[in-house]
Amino acid sequence: MDAERVRARLLEAVGPKGLVNDPAQLRAMSTPWRDSWPSEPLAVVMPGATAEVSAVARICHEEGWPLVPQGGNTGVTGAGLSRPGGRDVLISLKRMNRLRSMDAGDDIMVAEAGCILADLQAAAAAQERFFPMSLGSQGSCTIGGNIATNAGGINALRYGTMRQLVSGLEVVLPDGRVWDGLRKLRKDNTGYDLKHLFIGSEGTLGIITAAALFLSPRPRARCTALVGLESPAMALRWLRRLRHAMGEHLTACELIERICIEVAMRHQPGLRDPLAQPCPWYALVEAGSCDEAAALDERITACFAAALEAGEVLDGVIATSLAQSDALWAMREMLAEGHRHEGISFKHDVSVPVSQVPVFIDQAGEALAARFPGIRQFAFGHIGDGNIHYNSLQAAGEPAADWAPRLPEVNRIVHDIVHRLGGSISAEHGIGQLRRQELPRYKPAVELEMQQRIKAALDPLGQMNPGKLFL
Amino acid sequence: MDAERVRARLLEAVGPKGLVNDPAQLRAMSTPWRDSWPSEPLAVVMPGATAEVSAVARICHEEGWPLVPQGGNTGVTGAGLSRPGGRDVLISLKRMNRLRSMDAGDDIMVAEAGCILADLQAAAAAQERFFPMSLGSQGSCTIGGNIATNAGGINALRYGTMRQLVSGLEVVLPDGRVWDGLRKLRKDNTGYDLKHLFIGSEGTLGIITAAALFLSPRPRARCTALVGLESPAMALRWLRRLRHAMGEHLTACELIERICIEVAMRHQPGLRDPLAQPCPWYALVEAGSCDEAAALDERITACFAAALEAGEVLDGVIATSLAQSDALWAMREMLAEGHRHEGISFKHDVSVPVSQVPVFIDQAGEALAARFPGIRQFAFGHIGDGNIHYNSLQAAGEPAADWAPRLPEVNRIVHDIVHRLGGSISAEHGIGQLRRQELPRYKPAVELEMQQRIKAALDPLGQMNPGKLFL
Repeated sequence: MDAERVRARLLEAVGPKGLVNDPAQLRAMSTPWRDSWPSEPLAVVMPGATAEVSAVARICHEEGWPLVPQGGNTGVTGAGLSRPGGRDVLISLKRMNRLRSMDAGDDIMVAEAGCILADLQAAAAAQERFFPMSLGSQGSCTIGGNIATNAGGINALRYGTMRQLVSGLEVVLPDGRVWDGLRKLRKDNTGYDLKHLFIGSEGTLGIITAAALFLSPRPRARCTALVGLESPAMALRWLRRLRHAMGEHLTACELIERICIEVAMRHQPGLRDPLAQPCPWYALVEAGSCDEAAALDERITACFAAALEAGEVLDGVIATSLAQSDALWAMREMLAEGHRHEGISFKHDVSVPVSQVPVFIDQAGEALAARFPGIRQFAFGHIGDGNIHYNSLQAAGEPAADWAPRLPEVNRIVHDIVHRLGGSISAEHGIGQLRRQELPRYKPAVELEMQQRIKAALDPLGQMNPGKLFL
Repeated sequence: MDAERVRARLLEAVGPKGLVNDPAQLRAMSTPWRDSWPSEPLAVVMPGATAEVSAVARICHEEGWPLVPQGGNTGVTGAGLSRPGGRDVLISLKRMNRLRSMDAGDDIMVAEAGCILADLQAAAAAQERFFPMSLGSQGSCTIGGNIATNAGGINALRYGTMRQLVSGLEVVLPDGRVWDGLRKLRKDNTGYDLKHLFIGSEGTLGIITAAALFLSPRPRARCTALVGLESPAMALRWLRRLRHAMGEHLTACELIERICIEVAMRHQPGLRDPLAQPCPWYALVEAGSCDEAAALDERITACFAAALEAGEVLDGVIATSLAQSDALWAMREMLAEGHRHEGISFKHDVSVPVSQVPVFIDQAGEALAARFPGIRQFAFGHIGDGNIHYNSLQAAGEPAADWAPRLPEVNRIVHDIVHRLGGSISAEHGIGQLRRQELPRYKPAVELEMQQRIKAALDPLGQMNPGKLFL
């Protein structure tokens, strides 16, 4: 392939502003923020409009050039990176960042794929609405990437994953045709719901260029609490007690293992131990209501008092100010960052039925300790969704390099247990390059076959994001 | 095709209990409750287990016999009926009616496709949980049919359509293989989400045999109110006021035109006019909360007082007892039945963006009156979802037979307006046989093509429910 010719044809499609030449920018778009995926694009385009995306796709379709869509490059599975060897055209949606419409009366906004998540949250808030998707990278991830990976985040317990927040999509198909599915409808039963195919498809079926997104009423009362617990089983009891008492007001329930807080404190000097005494586990919960007078703090306090009385929690703090709430959540957001400082970390983003979370944590901990003495468990995550970020660190004091080769075996041990418990080896991060080798071990063959047939039906040339999701 | 041979082979698969011979039963399964679709099956089977469904599908696959799945036969588009001419094997799921598991701890139950919706509501309630799907036919419709048609109903405003309530599916594929996708997971990002393809596919891709279903906390407080209004635009203002004040507690908002209540009273002698003076339009709203002390009635009363003061409602009644609530909803459930007594009715189950409901009702009313003087508008439905059951009756006193030939033109007028407003010609009932001729006029060609490609990918022989959904 003549790289000069590729760039010349693409320049035709996107104009000088849309062809990326700056080495620093190229490097940023080929370098993931976590882990390391060798990546080298054939060319990088950054179109400014759907018509330009369409033109790029059409050219790639005619020429047989693979096309890799990228949003904010905040993914952790390598799904949005070009493969090594300079074979792929990388298409960044970041210049497509217009809020096309804010229909507060319909509780819907239409945003282009490159809009930054935090900007959309702010745009909704400015209209007294709430866009509930919220995750650590919200300052740099794009809504297109959130949709392509069906992002989860901390509010999924109450509001669902990204999938539940999409009313319609605009998608450029592999051959360059545009599907205008930007519907602002809450009900539409006119055949297969194609948007759900593109949501979570990791760029393997087409390029999402815009989305119609549902807005919710803005919560006007909020309460955050952190409790200390003996075990994940106690966290589950606490969750059930809260869910019973708080019902629709419970928006988040996060499980945190003690070591996560210790590591965070070690590397973030300003961070204080949240409770007077260290506890083996913690649960961080939040409730919200559109009713200012909902008295959420009284209700959580009552739950907490009852749980303390029953010996179901060890200690706790209920935030009495917005600043206290924010501090608790800031600590939560530091956890993912924390273990980067601890040497090697084997990461797993798994889900099991909610009732099986304690079983999973017990079994995985035992199996790993038996096989790799000294291995440290570093678990946190969305227990309300059954979604645990189950990470493992090398034994204290041992060199990370010695442990690196153990990754496949650690993955196997953890994922086999997840699978036996009816769980998923990727709850919210997706498959990308990271898990595509493992997926066939856990997915029923008939399901893999259906996925391949759909891929072949909608992307017959295999042009969209090759080397991701599928083997 | 030798019908004897067909029946002999099917008998092998399902045993004597699974082959339907009783003429009354055969008639019931070939006769829709509304409208009339000529229907005559080649044979009717009623398997008792997934393995039997699988065997039936395999035989049909080998023999090239079309297969038509049926649930409670409560659909209104002819999607669950065999075609005339005795060509189709009708497969009823009604004997598959086991609740396989009730996992209250996970807030999930696993039900076979033939379970009656009302039975599942009751099973959830017995565990202090809530299964929110609720519609007029709940005493006879099956959960499999609800899923295959992505049912909507009155609680969709708060809980979403059927799609939002499904955690996993078990599906028998056209070739008889079983896809076990019965996951009890709230997050699973491991490739295309196939369950969303089968949900709403109207039996054209496979046979849903069981589903894992999400349960919600059971509401412990409830308040129902009916207000009288001047116009749909006022209903929208009332909805927005409520949504602002009640937020997540608002579960339903139904619009009702005066004529609907008049017709219902004419044919239901026990029914009383709900307000002292007749009003042109009504809105029936419900709020629910898991918090017993939520004081929903006080909050709705305050909204009502403010709206009355602002001249935004004409009159109203707030139910002060469960019996009063139930009576208001019973009236609502009579509406669909009401217009059957009034001669001919041209029915439309449409949706538009919520803000466009008044525009749609105005425009459709004007256009129809201009073309067919005297035509009566009979509109009610889920205004909170933008979903209106927009029906038209022949001019008062005129013979229905004279009006029958006008159906295609009435459909065209109504659906063209819906389409111009960005709406859907089938909000919750589906396409089936009823709308398949019209769909290509309104669906983008590229979307129809994708749907056909998916159909061909998953049902390459075109064996599943031919003559439905597609042209």
